[in-house]
Formats: sequence, C-alpha cells, structure tokens
Amino acid sequence: MKDTLMRWKLPLICFIWQLAMIILFGVFIRYDDESSARWNVIRRTRNITSVLENDFYFRYPSFQDVHVMVFVGFGFLMTFLKRYGFGSVGFNFLIASFSIQWALLMQGWFHSLDYSDGKIKIGVESLINADFSAASVLIAFGGVLGKVSPVQLLIMSLFQVTLYAVNEFIILTVLGARDAGGSMVIHVFGAYFGLTITRILYRPNLDQRKNESVYHSDLFSMIGTLYLWMFWPSFNSAISNHGDAQHRGVINSYCSLAASVLTAIAISSVFEKKGKINMVHVQNGTLAGGVALGTAAEMMLTPYGSLIVGALSGTISTLGFIFLSPLLEKYLKIQDTCGIHNLHGIPGVIGAIVGAITAAAATEGVYSREGLIDAFGFVDGFADRTPSVQGGFQAAALCVTLLLSVGGGAVVGFILKLPFWGDPSDENCFEDEVYWEVPTEEEAALHSVHYENNQLKKPTSNGDTQQ
Amino acid sequence: MKDTLMRWKLPLICFIWQLAMIILFGVFIRYDDESSARWNVIRRTRNITSVLENDFYFRYPSFQDVHVMVFVGFGFLMTFLKRYGFGSVGFNFLIASFSIQWALLMQGWFHSLDYSDGKIKIGVESLINADFSAASVLIAFGGVLGKVSPVQLLIMSLFQVTLYAVNEFIILTVLGARDAGGSMVIHVFGAYFGLTITRILYRPNLDQRKNESVYHSDLFSMIGTLYLWMFWPSFNSAISNHGDAQHRGVINSYCSLAASVLTAIAISSVFEKKGKINMVHVQNGTLAGGVALGTAAEMMLTPYGSLIVGALSGTISTLGFIFLSPLLEKYLKIQDTCGIHNLHGIPGVIGAIVGAITAAAATEGVYSREGLIDAFGFVDGFADRTPSVQGGFQAAALCVTLLLSVGGGAVVGFILKLPFWGDPSDENCFEDEVYWEVPTEEEAALHSVHYENNQLKKPTSNGDTQQ
Amino acid sequence: MKDTLMRWKLPLICFIWQLAMIILFGVFIRYDDESSARWNVIRRTRNITSVLENDFYFRYPSFQDVHVMVFVGFGFLMTFLKRYGFGSVGFNFLIASFSIQWALLMQGWFHSLDYSDGKIKIGVESLINADFSAASVLIAFGGVLGKVSPVQLLIMSLFQVTLYAVNEFIILTVLGARDAGGSMVIHVFGAYFGLTITRILYRPNLDQRKNESVYHSDLFSMIGTLYLWMFWPSFNSAISNHGDAQHRGVINSYCSLAASVLTAIAISSVFEKKGKINMVHVQNGTLAGGVALGTAAEMMLTPYGSLIVGALSGTISTLGFIFLSPLLEKYLKIQDTCGIHNLHGIPGVIGAIVGAITAAAATEGVYSREGLIDAFGFVDGFADRTPSVQGGFQAAALCVTLLLSVGGGAVVGFILKLPFWGDPSDENCFEDEVYWEVPTEEEAALHSVHYENNQLKKPTSNGDTQQ
Repeated sequence: MKDTLMRWKLPLICFIWQLAMIILFGVFIRYDDESSARWNVIRRTRNITSVLENDFYFRYPSFQDVHVMVFVGFGFLMTFLKRYGFGSVGFNFLIASFSIQWALLMQGWFHSLDYSDGKIKIGVESLINADFSAASVLIAFGGVLGKVSPVQLLIMSLFQVTLYAVNEFIILTVLGARDAGGSMVIHVFGAYFGLTITRILYRPNLDQRKNESVYHSDLFSMIGTLYLWMFWPSFNSAISNHGDAQHRGVINSYCSLAASVLTAIAISSVFEKKGKINMVHVQNGTLAGGVALGTAAEMMLTPYGSLIVGALSGTISTLGFIFLSPLLEKYLKIQDTCGIHNLHGIPGVIGAIVGAITAAAATEGVYSREGLIDAFGFVDGFADRTPSVQGGFQAAALCVTLLLSVGGGAVVGFILKLPFWGDPSDENCFEDEVYWEVPTEEEAALHSVHYENNQLKKPTSNGDTQQ
Repeated sequence: MKDTLMRWKLPLICFIWQLAMIILFGVFIRYDDESSARWNVIRRTRNITSVLENDFYFRYPSFQDVHVMVFVGFGFLMTFLKRYGFGSVGFNFLIASFSIQWALLMQGWFHSLDYSDGKIKIGVESLINADFSAASVLIAFGGVLGKVSPVQLLIMSLFQVTLYAVNEFIILTVLGARDAGGSMVIHVFGAYFGLTITRILYRPNLDQRKNESVYHSDLFSMIGTLYLWMFWPSFNSAISNHGDAQHRGVINSYCSLAASVLTAIAISSVFEKKGKINMVHVQNGTLAGGVALGTAAEMMLTPYGSLIVGALSGTISTLGFIFLSPLLEKYLKIQDTCGIHNLHGIPGVIGAIVGAITAAAATEGVYSREGLIDAFGFVDGFADRTPSVQGGFQAAALCVTLLLSVGGGAVVGFILKLPFWGDPSDENCFEDEVYWEVPTEEEAALHSVHYENNQLKKPTSNGDTQQ
Repeated sequence: MKDTLMRWKLPLICFIWQLAMIILFGVFIRYDDESSARWNVIRRTRNITSVLENDFYFRYPSFQDVHVMVFVGFGFLMTFLKRYGFGSVGFNFLIASFSIQWALLMQGWFHSLDYSDGKIKIGVESLINADFSAASVLIAFGGVLGKVSPVQLLIMSLFQVTLYAVNEFIILTVLGARDAGGSMVIHVFGAYFGLTITRILYRPNLDQRKNESVYHSDLFSMIGTLYLWMFWPSFNSAISNHGDAQHRGVINSYCSLAASVLTAIAISSVFEKKGKINMVHVQNGTLAGGVALGTAAEMMLTPYGSLIVGALSGTISTLGFIFLSPLLEKYLKIQDTCGIHNLHGIPGVIGAIVGAITAAAATEGVYSREGLIDAFGFVDGFADRTPSVQGGFQAAALCVTLLLSVGGGAVVGFILKLPFWGDPSDENCFEDEVYWEVPTEEEAALHSVHYENNQLKKPTSNGDTQQ
C-alpha cells in the first residue's frame, strides 16, 4: 500500500486551519443583538414585548433538522460502499466541521458585516447558512468519494466555501434572485463543482467493482436517505420569511418528496431485471423532489404543482442513474461515485427553472400586493421589479451558478491534481484501510473465507463445493 | 423463484396513482390561511399581532418528530428480520409516501373542506393527520410483513386510508370522542385491520424459521424502537389544543413510556430461559405505554396514573408476545409477523378504555369549568354533555373502531387474496430477493460458507470440524 | 457459563422499583401550572396574553434533542464493542428509563417542591433535568460497560441519581454556581463516580481483547457520536434563560464542537501508525468541545473563545485516549471501557475552569447591568455578588463535585462488589450472551468459520491457506 504520508500532512493542515479560524473569529466574529446578553435591554428600546420574538424560536427547530441532514444525512447516505463506511461518515464529519467555521467568516463578510464596527454579527440564521454551505461541499464530496485523501478534501472545502459565498452574493444580493432552499446556490453549485473536479481527477484504471454495496451497508445508507427525506421540508424553509413562507415551504416540500418516492421506485422497477427494485434508486431518486423544490418551495407553487415537480424529478433522477451515469463515465470520463449529477445536478437545474417560472407567474391576485413584495423582496433597489422580470433574474442566476461552479471546479481540480496531497493509488480507492485504522480480527476472517471459497469453488463447475 | 411480474404491475400502479393524486390535488387542495402568501393581510384583519401566532410554530417540531416515527421508527423497527431489511425500510417508505398523499385528500374531504369554494385547505396540522393515517397503515403492514407484494401493500393502503378517514369521521365528529394520540383511530384500527387481512392470507406451509433476526438486524431494529419511544410524547400531543394540553400530553407519555421499559424487561427476564432478556420484547413491549396513552395523554390523568398505565401495558404486551402470539397462530391461524396484536391491538384497547374512564372521571374541580369545555370540546352540538356521558361515547367509539377495522380488513383481505397481485411463494416469504436487487458478492460468500459448514460438520458429532 | 440467577433478581428489582415509583408519584407529583387544565384560567389572572408564553414552546424542541442524546446518543455510542451491542443499547434504555423517574422525585424534592401543598410540580423543564440526571448515570455506565449485571446497574442508578440531586442542590442552590450544560453536575460527577466504581470492581484477569470493535459496530457507534455531537448545542442551552441565553448557548456550543473535530482527528493522525485515523478518537474526542462548554455556553464567552475551548479540549481528550488510559489501567487499575475519563472527566474539569474564569471576567460593559444580573442570578441572597466572587464559587463547586463523586462512587462501588448481584465472570465480560437471548444461526456460522480458518491457517506460515 502506497504511503500517503498523511501523518504529517493531515495534522498540519488541521492545526493550521483551526488556528487560523480562531484568529479570524477573534478579529471578526461577535454575537448579534438577539444572542447578546444586552438583548433584553435592546429589545425594550425596540418595543419588542415578548421574549419569544427572538429569531431563535422561529428557526432553531429547523436549524437542528438541517444539522442532522448535514452530519447524519449526507454522512450515512454515502456509507453504501462496502469498505468505505469510515471514510464516508468520518470525512463527512471532518470537512463539514471545517466548512461551517469557514462559512461563518466568508458568508459573514459578504452578508452580515456590521460596517459600524467592522464585525460580523452571527445568530441562528448564520448557523443555518453555514450548514448550507457545508451541504454544498458534501455534495461535491459525493462525486469524488473514495478517490481522494482527506487533505484534498480539506483543500477542496476551503476553495468551495469561498466560491460558494461569492456565487451566493452575486445571485442573491446583486441579481436579487430568491433561492431559500438552494436549488442553485447549494445543489447546482455543489454538483457541477464536484463533477468538474472528478473529471479532472479521472482515473482510467479504476476498478469500479469496489464501488459496490453489501447488504448491511445499504441499510446504513437508508438511515442517511430517510433523514434527508424527512427533514428536507425544514431545509427548504429554514431561512424563509417568518410565518406563512416557512409554513408553505414545508407543505410544498412534503408533497414533492412524497411524489418522488413513487416515481423513483416505479422507474427502478421498470428498468431493473424482473421488475426488482434497486436500492441505489431508493436511496437517491426519492430525494430529487426535495432538491427540485429548493427555489420554489416558499412560493405559491400550490400543492399539486409540488406533486408535479416531485413526480417529474423523481422520474428523471432515476432515469439518470440508469442511463446517463454510464454514458457520462464512458464518454465524458466523469466518475461520479454517488451519482451527484442525478441527485443534485439535474434536479437542481429543474428546481432553478421551476423557481424562475413560478416567480414569473406570480400575481397580486394570488399573493396580495403586500405578499408579493414580501415573497420576492421587491423593496429598496428591487422595488420596481415585476414578477416576470424577477423570473428573468432567476434564470440569470442559474447561468451564473453554472459558470462559476464549472470554472471554479476546474481551477480547484487542477490544484488537487498536484502530486503531493496523498491521494490513494487506484487499487486503494474505495477502501478505508488507506486512511483509517480498521478492526482486523473478524473482518479478516470474513475476507479470507471469501477468498478461500472463491478458490475452493474454482476447480469444480457444479454447485457443490469439493474439498 | 416464482416470477411475480412486478415489472409491469408495480410501475403501473405507482404511475397511475401518482397521476390521480396530481389531478385530485389540482382540483381540491389549496393552502390554508396560515400558509398562504395573503396571511399577513388576513392576520391583521383578525387582530393577530404576532407572526408567531401561526399554527406552524405550535406544531412543526411535533410534526417532525411524528414524521421521524413514521419513516424511520416504523421502517427500522421492522428490519429485525435477517433477510428482509430492504423490504421493511423500502416498502415502509413507499406505502407511507402514497398514504400521506391519499390521506390529505380523504381527511380533507371529511374534515377540512371549505364549503364556500369546495376546496380542502391544508396546513401543518393536516400533515400531522396524514402522517397519523400512514402510521395506521404501517401497523397493518407489520402484520403481513414479508408475505405480500408491494402491489398488495399499495392496494391495502388505498382502502385502509379511506376507511381510516370514515372511522375517524364517525368517532371524532359524529360521536364526539377524543383521541388525540389515536389509541383507537390509529392503533386499534390499524392492528385489527391488519390482523384480519393476515388471517385471510393465511399460509399453512410457511417456514417460520425465516421469521428470525441476526445480531446486527436486531441493532437496526433498535434504531426504530428508540425513535418511536423517544418521540411518542410528540405523537400523543401533536394535535392537542395549544398550550397546556400539548404540555400535559408530553408529560403523561414520558412517564408512561418509562414505566413500560421496566415492566417489559422484567417480564422478558421472568419467562425466558435463565432470565435472559429477549430483544423482541425490548423492541416492542417497551412501546406499549405510548400506545396505551393515545387517548388519555392530553387529559388530567396525573403522572402516577400514567405510570400505572405504562407499567400495566408493558407487562400485558410482553406477556402477549410470550403466550398469546403462539396461540393466535395455532388456533386462529393468525400469522402476525411483528406481533402487532401485542404492540398495537391490546395496548390500543387498553388505551381506549383508559381514555373512557379518565373522561368519565373528569370534574370541574380538577379541570375548571373552562378547562373541561376545552379539553373535551363541550361546545356546539356537544355543549350539554357531561363527563360521564363523554365516557360512554368514548367506549362506543372503541366498538365502532373494532367493527370497522375487522369488517374492512375482511373485505380488503379477500381482495388481496386474488391471485394476480404478485405475492411471493411460501419459500420466498421473508426474503428480499423476490422484490429487490440484493448485493451478491460478499453475502454470497457468507451464505455459501454457512452452507458448507453445515455440510462439513454433519459427518462428525464432536465439537471439532474435520475436513 | 456462570448462572447469574438473573431470572429472579432482575424482574424483582424492576417490579419493586416501578411499584415504588408509582406510589411515590401518587403521593408527591402533580402537573405544574403550565401543564394543568386550569392554565388558561391561571394565565389570565397573570396577564399572560398569548398561549405561546408557555414554557413548553420555549423548551420542547431542546428537550427532544436531549432525549435523543440520552437514549440514542449514549446508547449507540457504546455499541462499538463487537459483541455487546444489545447490552449497550438495551441496558442504556433500562437504566435511563428508571433514572428519569427517580430523578423527577429526587430533583423535585430539592428544587420544585411546593410547600403550600407538599407536592412536586413538574413541567417540561423537569423532564429535561431528569434526562440530565440520567445522562450522568449513563456516563458512569460507560466506565463499567460490559463488566456488570443489569441489577448492579439499577442499584448504581438509584444511588447515583440520589447523590446527583444532592450535589446539584449544593452547588447550584447553596453555592449559587451556574452550570446550565452540566460540565460539573453531569460530566465531572458522572465520570469520577463511574471511575471510582470501576476501580473498586477491578478485574485483574480481564481479557481486554474482547474490548474491541468490528467494522459495522464502529458504524453503529458513529450514529451515537453524531447525534450527541449535533444535539449538544441543545443540551447546553436547554435550561438556560429564555431568549438570548439559549441562543448564545447554541452558538457557543456549535463553534466549540466544530473545533474539536479538527483537533481530535489531527491528534489521532499524528500518533497512530502511518497517520491513519482511529475511530475511537473520532467517536469520542470530537465530543470534548461540547462537554467543555457545559458551564460557559450561556455566558459571553465569544465565538472565538468557544473555538479555543473546543480545539484545546479535543486535543487533550484525544491525547488522553492515546497516552493516559493505558497508564490509568496499568498503575491505578482503572479499567475504563469507554474512556469516560477522556471524554467526560478531563473535558468536564476544563469546562468547570473555563466557566469559573468566564464568570470572573464578566463585566457590565459586556453584559449590561441587567444582563449580568440575569446571566448569573445576582438576585435575592446573591444580590451583592460580583463576577469575581462568582468565579470563586464556580471553582468551589468543582471541588465539591469532585469530592462527592469520588466519595459516593467509593461507597457505591463497595456495595456493588457484594457477591450476589449476578455480575459476569471474567470470561463473559463484554459478551451479550450472559444476559441476552442472542440469535444463533448465522452468527454461529460466522464464528465457526472464523475458528476454522484460524485452525486451518496455523499449520502453514505462508500467505496461502492449505487444506
């Protein structure tokens, strides 16, 4: 086994970056008014009568659901690989923990810098946004899963979180697009960033047979799927406006996700032999309805509109796993371990388009004048926008996101291709042994048994095993 | 292996039903006031000052807990079978996703149809009720687990959700019974509906040895148990009145569930050989206290009353697993895979009775006059009810539920017995291979090793294996 | 296998104690105002206008997170042992369910006894505190894991919950220390209590090779780790003052925990061979940042202060696993199964010290005069305290906790050493078979295969296996 020299590289990068975080937090990050001990004084000056009118009580339950999706959802979803469970859950844990710190800074500089004192003021909404940024990194991680070192992952996270904040700033603040659940900022960005990287890191001699599951690893993966699926309504509504927008985001996502399950399983059964269902599709295609509602969830999409989006995206995502992924690998040399193109790429694009159409179709009759202004932020610089203009800006936001993700991914891909980041050799891909202490005893027994049986069986061609 | 022809049946039913849902949602389902973009306008006309006074903030955390119980709780609880993990989690996912859509319609027509425009108005409480309906279907699923095809399950769901809404309408709206946590509407109904079906689908030659667990499948199952157990307080209080009723429902359920754990483990240890504890009882009997509080949780049952109910139901449920289940199979030919009679049937009946007694014993001294009216809904048509009369109606509601569940189960059972739904042969019961793509490599090694060892060991009778 | 005579002991103790709980609850425990059916009447007399101003809506989401940590977090964290998964999750379930009942009584007598009627009035905050008490017991359980009987565990719980309430009363009520997340009351107390017991129960001939994991047991354990990690912000803020204190507790914990992940993994990689990461450190060291913020989370520690605490405690905790644990076992004869000294002992002491310093450093400039009074409870008997005096009392509280935990642990240790509690023999330690019905078939095959292979391989020294 190639020595990846992780012993110095990994600790060094972890310590240096953690130290940098401490220093930067010390210089820049402070509590916002609602999390400061002075809040009781402040709120009385603002005539806020109830302690409950603290953003904490509006958003904390949603935040915790998002937190579960990022750490358990993504982490366990990727444990489907038979010998990469530690790497899936463990690296997920590591890079998400770094990303949320760095995101608090990056997003803070762009979105919540208090110019009066030069400090970033954070509260529960900042934590949700930091988790969102980490989610985007974890999507890209799904594309390169099993083929890179933890050092490469940390470097990728650093660049991706940075570019994420830039893209977010351009499309939300400059263009004034709406994207509460992140079809564009999170999913499209994460997917095409990751796919570009995995293309550049193409390994022609990779043994794809290791990219497989065993019975119990598929069950572990279902833990991830279900937590993502159940909490997606929280994800899509966590940073929406207080009140009806959060409420509506939950209803729309609930409907859409339910529809995806039926169509993903139906498509799986149509195309697998004898109508059997493939767990890969259940683990992934069922989630497409959540991704595809990331932009429009808070809008007046209507429950049946949500069902249509969910049913379509579940169908298309599952078809992608069956037909598109092999083509992408064969012709474009994109080795997409988790199929992020099918789960986040295509459904993300669908979500962006659905969002643009839903915005363009908004009317005062449906939203009320005040509702329209609230829902799309038609204030200040955007006060004279009409819904159809907003639709155009939504579409422009998708284009910007695609450009930045592919462009950024290309740069980062070439950085990660440098030969000193300790990546695994082709034979060690999808294997925990390279980077993790793996329990030996019982497992070794299993492996040797397996090996033996294969050997034992070879000499005979009939069903019985001869000794 | 019998070809179940799932390839056309399953996709067809999924697509047609999903299409039907889209059309019916399009015709009937709209946002309610609190999830509409017009809400800010509406709430000011009603003098609601705070954005927080949106039902979303009262119920969303409970909703998410219920959602976890339905998809992870029930799904993983049933993974105890050694070779039916995919079917347990996967079919659970499929039928729950269909049931919640159909339930929004059925319950909507009965309970939240706005006669002014003929539309069903949905909000977060509708989602909770839809999840409750799905829970009832999943209880019935536990009875037939491993012995039916996904097509049969979807047909069962269609009928069960329909009849669930009818029963709910009769006992809650017509009879005016209270059943916030669903001892009757969810548990009794689901259990006896499912047991009647499994009786009609009786398989005399079923090999019950496959109905067993392995070490890790028992641990997966404990994930389900614990999530059900922890979130049951949310389940029993999710649709209670705002304020003290939700608060009290949580306290009562918390106490009851804790008591069930001690008595279930005690009974297990008494009756298993050498005082060992049986995981089946830990996985199930510990939950009886939640079921048995489904009706009375929101009432002034007192914490010690809750402990008594929990201790008793944990005891009786576990005794049911040990003594009653074998008798039911032998004499009544009821093959109850998960023991739903012990976990939902009996404790549900206990819960209904406890609810009737607690209601009948309510006094103004304990509740206050206003509290009594709030707690039991003594308004409008029920304004002149007394607690003892209420107790009588609670008991009547149990009888109606029992009748409808057995009657409905019988009809649906005969429908499911029709020979073209692709059910598995007796040898394929409790096996994922019929309906799922199952990873082969490593597992095959295990199986063949197992087989070999049995072979190898046969010639000798001493402990050592000879080759 | 030694007969532990659990058949009578375990059921007897469960039934008697549950009966005692029912009687004591009947005599002492009642609903508090906010969970009583009279609450609507009461709140109007107090001019509380909104139903939302019920403590339920401030604390229930946090309560459920804590509940998950206690039952799934601790339970699954301990499943890392290859053959003790049932015992880890199952005994965790049993003793936590007893502890929360007993804690409601013990904490009630000390903290919420209504002297007007001699009753304990409980609400959602009581449930959180009861769960906290159970958490302390489960920490101690981690020290003796695999080496004691369920009867010993129940006896330990009885004494520990009792002494927990005494210690809590002394340090919070008498000394006026602050410890919202329980660095002292929960972690230091639980750890040193458990370590003292495991010292007294020292087994010189214990085969530590059974104290090991297998591949999938490490993944199950990660479920526990992640739920503890994700929900720790709720744990540290669940009983803080409404509003900014809860909000701040979440932000601080979030930062601290993220930093621990990076330093724990870095240290693991430095000291393991070839820079590989050890799952034990990922499962435990990453959580140190939550423990170490138990006292100061609600204070104005600042986000960068939290990062420093998290980074340091993750480092020290992981170093403890690598260097200190072997020494403790060798020289002090402390067999600490889960390494509770590294996860709860040392980080708890750090947390107490950080809390004392942060309190002593508090100023009116940062907190505002009113904020200072709120944050440290400078009212009534403590009205004339200054921050620096408060810091002194915080330090005193740590000393009291250390004394009481070691002293109490010693007494309880000797009680548990009595020969009739059915403890396992040395050979049966870390084995589920003693106390649990374990599925035999497939597992037996695996074991025999393993055994065979070892046998088969012995005669030859080269890599190939000869038959």
